[in-house]
Amino acid sequence: MAAIITLTSDFGTRDAFAASMKGVILKINPQAQIIDISHEIAPQDIWEAAFTLQSACTHFPRGTVHLVVVDPGVGSGRRPIIVVTESYFFVGPDNGIFTLVYEKAERLRVHHITAAHYFLPNPGSTFHGRDIFAPVAAWLAKGIPSGNFGEEITDYTKLNIPAPKVTANSIEGHIVHIDRFGNMITNFTYNTIQMLVEGGGDITNAVISIAGKEIKGLKKYYAEAAPGEPAALVNSSGSVEIFVFKQSAKALLSSRRGESVRFTVPR
Amino acid sequence: MAAIITLTSDFGTRDAFAASMKGVILKINPQAQIIDISHEIAPQDIWEAAFTLQSACTHFPRGTVHLVVVDPGVGSGRRPIIVVTESYFFVGPDNGIFTLVYEKAERLRVHHITAAHYFLPNPGSTFHGRDIFAPVAAWLAKGIPSGNFGEEITDYTKLNIPAPKVTANSIEGHIVHIDRFGNMITNFTYNTIQMLVEGGGDITNAVISIAGKEIKGLKKYYAEAAPGEPAALVNSSGSVEIFVFKQSAKALLSSRRGESVRFTVPR
Amino acid sequence: MAAIITLTSDFGTRDAFAASMKGVILKINPQAQIIDISHEIAPQDIWEAAFTLQSACTHFPRGTVHLVVVDPGVGSGRRPIIVVTESYFFVGPDNGIFTLVYEKAERLRVHHITAAHYFLPNPGSTFHGRDIFAPVAAWLAKGIPSGNFGEEITDYTKLNIPAPKVTANSIEGHIVHIDRFGNMITNFTYNTIQMLVEGGGDITNAVISIAGKEIKGLKKYYAEAAPGEPAALVNSSGSVEIFVFKQSAKALLSSRRGESVRFTVPR
Repeated sequence: MAAIITLTSDFGTRDAFAASMKGVILKINPQAQIIDISHEIAPQDIWEAAFTLQSACTHFPRGTVHLVVVDPGVGSGRRPIIVVTESYFFVGPDNGIFTLVYEKAERLRVHHITAAHYFLPNPGSTFHGRDIFAPVAAWLAKGIPSGNFGEEITDYTKLNIPAPKVTANSIEGHIVHIDRFGNMITNFTYNTIQMLVEGGGDITNAVISIAGKEIKGLKKYYAEAAPGEPAALVNSSGSVEIFVFKQSAKALLSSRRGESVRFTVPR
Repeated sequence: MAAIITLTSDFGTRDAFAASMKGVILKINPQAQIIDISHEIAPQDIWEAAFTLQSACTHFPRGTVHLVVVDPGVGSGRRPIIVVTESYFFVGPDNGIFTLVYEKAERLRVHHITAAHYFLPNPGSTFHGRDIFAPVAAWLAKGIPSGNFGEEITDYTKLNIPAPKVTANSIEGHIVHIDRFGNMITNFTYNTIQMLVEGGGDITNAVISIAGKEIKGLKKYYAEAAPGEPAALVNSSGSVEIFVFKQSAKALLSSRRGESVRFTVPR
Repeated sequence: MAAIITLTSDFGTRDAFAASMKGVILKINPQAQIIDISHEIAPQDIWEAAFTLQSACTHFPRGTVHLVVVDPGVGSGRRPIIVVTESYFFVGPDNGIFTLVYEKAERLRVHHITAAHYFLPNPGSTFHGRDIFAPVAAWLAKGIPSGNFGEEITDYTKLNIPAPKVTANSIEGHIVHIDRFGNMITNFTYNTIQMLVEGGGDITNAVISIAGKEIKGLKKYYAEAAPGEPAALVNSSGSVEIFVFKQSAKALLSSRRGESVRFTVPR
């Protein structure tokens, strides 16, 4: 079976950046199957990369190498790393991009990449995606053990992600991502809601407050909502999501990432 | 030979949606070659998906599985279906997305997908692209017979597509698609024009009226037109297309999809 | 090993153009691995295609077929060509798109494509990407010798690219590309700068003038620059590049391609 390497970056698809990485990978590992997760991460947006990677990566076959390059600190002291979990390899800069991987992994090992004989010759200081990360991913996918690339480290970088505040009858969270459709994804999930239910809350009469609007209850699917009305549901990742059927909730609520969301249930 | 699966959706390429489907496919069918037709269909635009699919799909090898997910009704009563023609398999929601496939197919069979053991475990009600359509496409491409996925149906959904009105010396049509270059594609073709010619029309003096402008005759290729002047030709799909050489006809004519176009020939 | 075919075009990814070419390639050569370099070249921008191709192509394995379709003259007299260098094949229109390939190649042979039995049947005059270039690339990648497609020519088209003007202590160049991040790439390189150094110039006190601003010295990497301040470095292609750390130099300098850049060193 051909090894799979996924790519996530803020390089866009107009310039030659992503394609250069693919060329480097195929030169080393012509059997690799390269799949783009996204190259449209907002420039330098480490959180968006972390979120998008987490949404996609778990659907790939065991052994997949996930290469992530959102790397404003390229060339500075920040370390290149390999993260090994029970299912996958991750390759990228140690800038917090793998925070959600660290949170979800059952087993975890992180290596500081230092073995320069796996890099392109004479790597520069502005495009490690091409000169360091792509060749390392290609060699990893060829079966080189992760330990060969450098020493294990434990002081890897994690983003500080604010958790939702949960009381007996409310959750105070915020919007962590807005997707192409203008759907707004919160930082609380079906599991968080279950805590309120188990505390005796009446979930069928839940009220979600966002941007001065009140949304009553949770829909099961998008088409169930009235046209033009903000609504909410538990989405395909298990997160509570604010949407407007066939419209952009973001536009309708004049809202953006970071917006506060309050979920309350009567008792 | 590796099976080919194409993807057409309104998911965009910024979020993890399309990549999640690819991961699901590769987990089931690691040999599949996945080719994007487009993920930039306008959100919920079923017609644009139908048009784009039709423009691309016929160029693929026999046996290709075409997976199409523009699915505003996901989770509601609309059925997931497989369409089998003399050349291809199509997988997606029964919302009219395959209307042009139905029109062009010589042989046609449509199955309502119900065999849940081919789905991801515990499919949700908001992302059937990932939970139902992607796994079904992957299994189809592995050779599972279409009949195994569910019963044949005959009451599948078709979009109502207005045909051009053809008289002895004129065609009244409209713009059905505007491409990246601002070229405007009509709903009448070289074959429609031939009907006028056979009726004695003088094609070399044809006049095309659109948005208050008159275009005389048909060019053979783009560079043949005078700069800045709207012109027309029969395009690579056989359709009459309005264009401006190296400019956007859409912008120059302040026009959009649905705009009326009148093609007349003197007799 | 599967043959690799890269695609560069101004077709965008919304319409069916690029996917149609991929279908045609896979029908002829199902083993081909197709990699997109970019489909977001600005419409009809031959220079941008030449620049983007050059940035990416050298990273691919020997024998890769690079297919490039930015082709405003499609259907007119402009010739379809194959370019053969010591490492790669290039297929596309003879409109200057391969100018940088001609400049860098050690060995070079150009063929006028005329062997119509390699084309799609009844090729049209508006989409040679699909009807001529894609099938020729697919056959080339299957091992058909380039000579089989047509006669060698020597009068192929080259873009007139203004070189930087180099004096004893200055370089007068201009911006040739602005990337997704708003970084502005000049037409002079580390090698050009070396000429000044060898002439006795004091490179550590270099001054770069652009859009009424003065930039002192060269950084080694992006994060080294002060926030909000225009800075310069030698980028991953060896070119001098103007940037603003985590911002868009293009926006900050209200600048665009073609902008003059003056690099001076005290002596």
